[in-house]
Amino acid sequence: MRCSLFSNLSNKQILDANFGIEREGLRVTSRGILSLTPHPEVFGDKKENPYITTDFSESQLEFVTPVFHNTSDAIDFLDSLYNIAALELDNEFIWPQSMPAVTPEDQDIPIATFSNHGKDERYRAYLEQKYGGKKQLISGIHINFSLGEKLIEALYSKSKKQISLHDFKQKLYLKLTRNYLRYHWLLVYFLGATNIIHKTYEQQCVEKLQEISGETYSNEKAISYRNSICGYQNKEFIRLDYSSIDHYVHSINSYIHKGVLEDIRELYSQIRLKSKGTPYSGENLLNNGIEYLEIRTIDINPFVKSGLSVEDLNFIHLFLLYCLEKDEPIYDDWQLESEQNSKKVAIEGQNLQLALLQNGSTTSLQSWGIDIIHELLEMNQQYGLPFTNLLKEKEELLTDYQKTYSYRLARLCKEKGFIKTHLELAKKHKKEAFLERFKLKPYTDMELSTQILLKESIKRGIHFHILDRKENFIELTKGENKQYIKQATKTSKDQYVAVLIMENKSVTKQILKRNNIVVPEGDEFFDITSAKESLGSWIGVPLVIKPKSTNFGLGISIFPNGAHEEDLIKGLEIAFSEDSTILIEPFIKGKEYRFLVIGDETVAVLHRVPANVTGDGTSTIQQLISQKNEDPLRGKGYKTPLEKIEIDENMKLFLQQKGLTIYTVLPKGECQYLRENSNISTGGDSIDVTDQVPEVFKQIAVEASQAVGAKICGVDMMIEDFEDEHSSYAIIELNFNPAIHIHSYPYQGTERNVAIKILELVELI
Amino acid sequence: MRCSLFSNLSNKQILDANFGIEREGLRVTSRGILSLTPHPEVFGDKKENPYITTDFSESQLEFVTPVFHNTSDAIDFLDSLYNIAALELDNEFIWPQSMPAVTPEDQDIPIATFSNHGKDERYRAYLEQKYGGKKQLISGIHINFSLGEKLIEALYSKSKKQISLHDFKQKLYLKLTRNYLRYHWLLVYFLGATNIIHKTYEQQCVEKLQEISGETYSNEKAISYRNSICGYQNKEFIRLDYSSIDHYVHSINSYIHKGVLEDIRELYSQIRLKSKGTPYSGENLLNNGIEYLEIRTIDINPFVKSGLSVEDLNFIHLFLLYCLEKDEPIYDDWQLESEQNSKKVAIEGQNLQLALLQNGSTTSLQSWGIDIIHELLEMNQQYGLPFTNLLKEKEELLTDYQKTYSYRLARLCKEKGFIKTHLELAKKHKKEAFLERFKLKPYTDMELSTQILLKESIKRGIHFHILDRKENFIELTKGENKQYIKQATKTSKDQYVAVLIMENKSVTKQILKRNNIVVPEGDEFFDITSAKESLGSWIGVPLVIKPKSTNFGLGISIFPNGAHEEDLIKGLEIAFSEDSTILIEPFIKGKEYRFLVIGDETVAVLHRVPANVTGDGTSTIQQLISQKNEDPLRGKGYKTPLEKIEIDENMKLFLQQKGLTIYTVLPKGECQYLRENSNISTGGDSIDVTDQVPEVFKQIAVEASQAVGAKICGVDMMIEDFEDEHSSYAIIELNFNPAIHIHSYPYQGTERNVAIKILELVELI
Repeated sequence: MRCSLFSNLSNKQILDANFGIEREGLRVTSRGILSLTPHPEVFGDKKENPYITTDFSESQLEFVTPVFHNTSDAIDFLDSLYNIAALELDNEFIWPQSMPAVTPEDQDIPIATFSNHGKDERYRAYLEQKYGGKKQLISGIHINFSLGEKLIEALYSKSKKQISLHDFKQKLYLKLTRNYLRYHWLLVYFLGATNIIHKTYEQQCVEKLQEISGETYSNEKAISYRNSICGYQNKEFIRLDYSSIDHYVHSINSYIHKGVLEDIRELYSQIRLKSKGTPYSGENLLNNGIEYLEIRTIDINPFVKSGLSVEDLNFIHLFLLYCLEKDEPIYDDWQLESEQNSKKVAIEGQNLQLALLQNGSTTSLQSWGIDIIHELLEMNQQYGLPFTNLLKEKEELLTDYQKTYSYRLARLCKEKGFIKTHLELAKKHKKEAFLERFKLKPYTDMELSTQILLKESIKRGIHFHILDRKENFIELTKGENKQYIKQATKTSKDQYVAVLIMENKSVTKQILKRNNIVVPEGDEFFDITSAKESLGSWIGVPLVIKPKSTNFGLGISIFPNGAHEEDLIKGLEIAFSEDSTILIEPFIKGKEYRFLVIGDETVAVLHRVPANVTGDGTSTIQQLISQKNEDPLRGKGYKTPLEKIEIDENMKLFLQQKGLTIYTVLPKGECQYLRENSNISTGGDSIDVTDQVPEVFKQIAVEASQAVGAKICGVDMMIEDFEDEHSSYAIIELNFNPAIHIHSYPYQGTERNVAIKILELVELI
Repeated sequence: MRCSLFSNLSNKQILDANFGIEREGLRVTSRGILSLTPHPEVFGDKKENPYITTDFSESQLEFVTPVFHNTSDAIDFLDSLYNIAALELDNEFIWPQSMPAVTPEDQDIPIATFSNHGKDERYRAYLEQKYGGKKQLISGIHINFSLGEKLIEALYSKSKKQISLHDFKQKLYLKLTRNYLRYHWLLVYFLGATNIIHKTYEQQCVEKLQEISGETYSNEKAISYRNSICGYQNKEFIRLDYSSIDHYVHSINSYIHKGVLEDIRELYSQIRLKSKGTPYSGENLLNNGIEYLEIRTIDINPFVKSGLSVEDLNFIHLFLLYCLEKDEPIYDDWQLESEQNSKKVAIEGQNLQLALLQNGSTTSLQSWGIDIIHELLEMNQQYGLPFTNLLKEKEELLTDYQKTYSYRLARLCKEKGFIKTHLELAKKHKKEAFLERFKLKPYTDMELSTQILLKESIKRGIHFHILDRKENFIELTKGENKQYIKQATKTSKDQYVAVLIMENKSVTKQILKRNNIVVPEGDEFFDITSAKESLGSWIGVPLVIKPKSTNFGLGISIFPNGAHEEDLIKGLEIAFSEDSTILIEPFIKGKEYRFLVIGDETVAVLHRVPANVTGDGTSTIQQLISQKNEDPLRGKGYKTPLEKIEIDENMKLFLQQKGLTIYTVLPKGECQYLRENSNISTGGDSIDVTDQVPEVFKQIAVEASQAVGAKICGVDMMIEDFEDEHSSYAIIELNFNPAIHIHSYPYQGTERNVAIKILELVELI
């Protein structure tokens, strides 16, 4: 019986919860052998990086997500951590499986080292001694779960309030925990994926199994050796008292006193009660009470890059709510029974008729499982939750064990062998990571420049906090250094007045000129009448008319070949419609380059070209565009480094003027521009030319930034011949909020890590 | 005959010219005695301050304007220098007369001292020795005049171009100079105002004159003793060669070789040819040619605060253009004749029939003067210049000498005595200066805060340059330190990101809260639907609804007594119309105070109250408003510290709700608010409470600024009881561009010099 705990609560209230995920993963060579190289330096000090660290072994990456309020964000972030880490590994891969790859003997397994060489190293040596190094290499997924405060409050206000909110919360978590233990065998069945082990694994375990293919050992019915005696388990069954937090801690302490456990950390239970205080200790638990639960049952899903799918996390969430609602049977020996059921499923779960004990009575895995699923479906329907399909899929696993991860994995290993199967999956995951390298899930709604900066920060263990997501306002912290950054390039290092100078083209020009930097000489006008009066000397002269204040190129008219008075007047009207002050400047010959200056260095130089395609002799322009748009770097709405080329009336008109249509087949190798403007936003290409541009121009860009006092500056320079250091040039604009993604992920040329330069500038690295 | 030099040129071209003015003025005691105190320290090093320095004597202030492109700006700036300097003199006044006040004997006249005690002091000692200290105390006005480059180019392009532009320009200036010498006697007549001297002046001069009243000596016909032998003249007549710049310099050098002059600086001619190079030397003149002229004929006008009226400067300008255009007669001894005419007018000019020599023939002052005025009128008409009235007024002086400055001054002295006449004028000027103390002419179109900052900079000799007048963007330079400042408070000292934090109320609150500073606890909403859903807990609660981004109070609804749901929804709609994110916060009890933090100090605290009047028992509200509006601090459009109270429908409605109309007579002493809001912009009063507010709140304001990294910050704090240091408070907003004028010139309370704090912050002082 369920107790209808959640009746009258909204969908949002019921699902109010917090999720943090920890996932381990072994670094392996391209031959599937445990890597013996040190933890990559880029991830910084293992004790300092809150996101990417190691667990037992030096080769055992551990990813730790912050707390998220929904399952998909947590999974997305975990997936991003995978991407970030995987792409830093040269010729190494992240082993996609909880059970280890090819492992050396214990003495050769590299235990994680720490900068202080202190108790962290000693504890690991103790564990190796006690459990053996190979077992310690087992990698898992831990989910840190808490009920949302609003949910707890809602449940409390529905209760009789005979106890305090704090005690009420403790009772909720204790009941949830007890039921979790009763029913978690089902999670083992659904999510187990460690039913095969490698021949180099602990011989005690290997010996009991059959070699089902090259180097792969299994009993053929197993689901999760990790959850069996061959996994990461305590040496003996530990019966704890879950009736209150005091009793719970007391019962753990008694095992510690008996010498069974060294420490509370050595309690390898399927679920741990936790308080937020550090260190993880019984004392903290007694002081603060249970604040979250650590779910430890879950094997890495080898078929999913992050190791856990959002659907499975949703299922776990629903399952936990079920545990909260489900009435508890009265049966004294429930703990041992639960333990036995779980272990049985771990070893023999592919037998759907496997006999399990339910409060002393025998039932089958299948029938009990289907009962639970039906109750979950009922719950889902009663509260209008969105998990019907998910539950139906899980139900299928109870009628067809061949759909389980474990069966599917064993089948692959039988076909290809243990190492090849896992390496292929690892390589596939790494390739996917590369294709997603420019973005940071779940923050893909933020500007790409901010995603890139966050990504670099996370990699280096710089703690981040989103202050205002819509406005791309973040906080980055490393030790005592707290930095507020907006839109990736608006930092504490730029003076306010430097920005105001750059915002004002006329003031910028005055200052650059006085610093002997070439700018277009021109006139400034405050009203259209006096501008018109002074047009005389500009007629027929190649020129640009533009509003004084920078505004995304709005209101600018360019006459590269000069123009008649009436056209110039039109240009004046357009410019004055954007600003009350306008500039007329001579048109500078050459091409425009964007120099990105950070600190006192030009860190990247980019040239932008209009949207274009190159013919193959058989495809139409339309087909070529659609091929070009398949590049994952191209997207819509500035969330990708490049934008998809859209076919619109402007483009058709442009092509028509060249005697072409979108159905024209272009000759092989012929590059055809599709628009006049070179904006990236209309499908233009960004081409990195950092290494080709002579030093002299990079130096001029730095000097221009310094002249206005800017630390981060996008310098737009016209250069007649960009490879000739004696070429004439002029600086046409300084930008105080330059995009960094165009340099990080150009269409062509070297990808420049400019985020690192920003982090260096603000002294976070 | 005039040569119609300017035919076909536009009005604007003809009047294209540059003006810089130097004006000296003695510091005197309240009894009209030469001050013996040192040059005020606030003006800094005499050699460094480009605007306020000293000339010969330590007590002889010298005001120097930058170059302006029109006469009124130059005069306005001169007038501002007077205001700035006069208001720094405690119990001292600026003597409004070229001839000195009560002077001690030579040995007691304080010669200006310099920090290096070098050649500047030695040269002054030499001059005192040679000419006597009293003569060196004579103060004058020098006008540095140049023709506009566009005018010279226009004249050149009309010429036959047989010589280079440079040589053409030299010829123009030489002709102008020669004619200036020929006709400058007319300026002596019009502008002379030194026809009386004090009995303590050089006895050689005093002895020759009659005592026309107490301590006043004159011959009764004089115009300008300063331009006579009793003035600041060379010992002998110096005839120079004005045919070319080479000859000019050569002829000066020959007087130096003969020992008549120590240096080119000792040439006290009526007009000097000058190049822009420093020092003023013959060598520089030879290298660069004539770049401007220094007109030295002009006496200080005692009736005008600045010492020179814009009308007189306009007349001088037109007169100089006349000199340029007027054909030169062929008459060899023109220089001596000119000198003699000038000296005669100086001593006897109040006789209109005074005989002058014109190319050897005799004419009268009146008839020659009227001839010149008629030619000027003709010129004015021919070119459509705007000086008809001005010329008519000058013409009247040629029919009625009693309208001259000199006659008017002598009459006053006869009536009141020398000292009283001048002291009354000096005190009147100082009082006018006080009434204008908040503004800086000619920059009254700029924001008042910027005017105040500029004024303080000028006072302290910090060089200023206007980068963008419309945008209040200035450059301040002292030695190597160049600072760009926009709107007085946007400086190099504020980090860009600090400004972005303050701009974002939600981020500001997060950061303040984490720094343990009290802010209103509230909710943030991103869409109106979810805001409406969450209104439940806010109904009836005193609250404020506001858009997330600061925007001059737009979109804010305040419900001090709570409100019904429908009113709250209206408030939400208003807020969402301004921003896509809004905040609901509890209403904080108490009154609002503005803390101005500069650097790490609260430099001023202000309370703003709604527009109000206080009854006198007889006047109507309307009359009281009109009385209050007479305060010179009140103006329109943010150019004054306070705004005039305008009677509008809102005010009438507000009064109506109180049972009043604008015709109600208020009881004596009763203060009546006229509006709900306390904005200064709608006539509210600013009340300085800096000294009353407990230190603890000032410290909290500083901590709030520091928390967001701001160096200049307007902290808006609600305090329940502002004089109780234990009162509850909350910070409701941080402003990154706080107005400074409200603190500099409050309606009530001490005027705070906050500009100095900004200059200290940017290390200019």
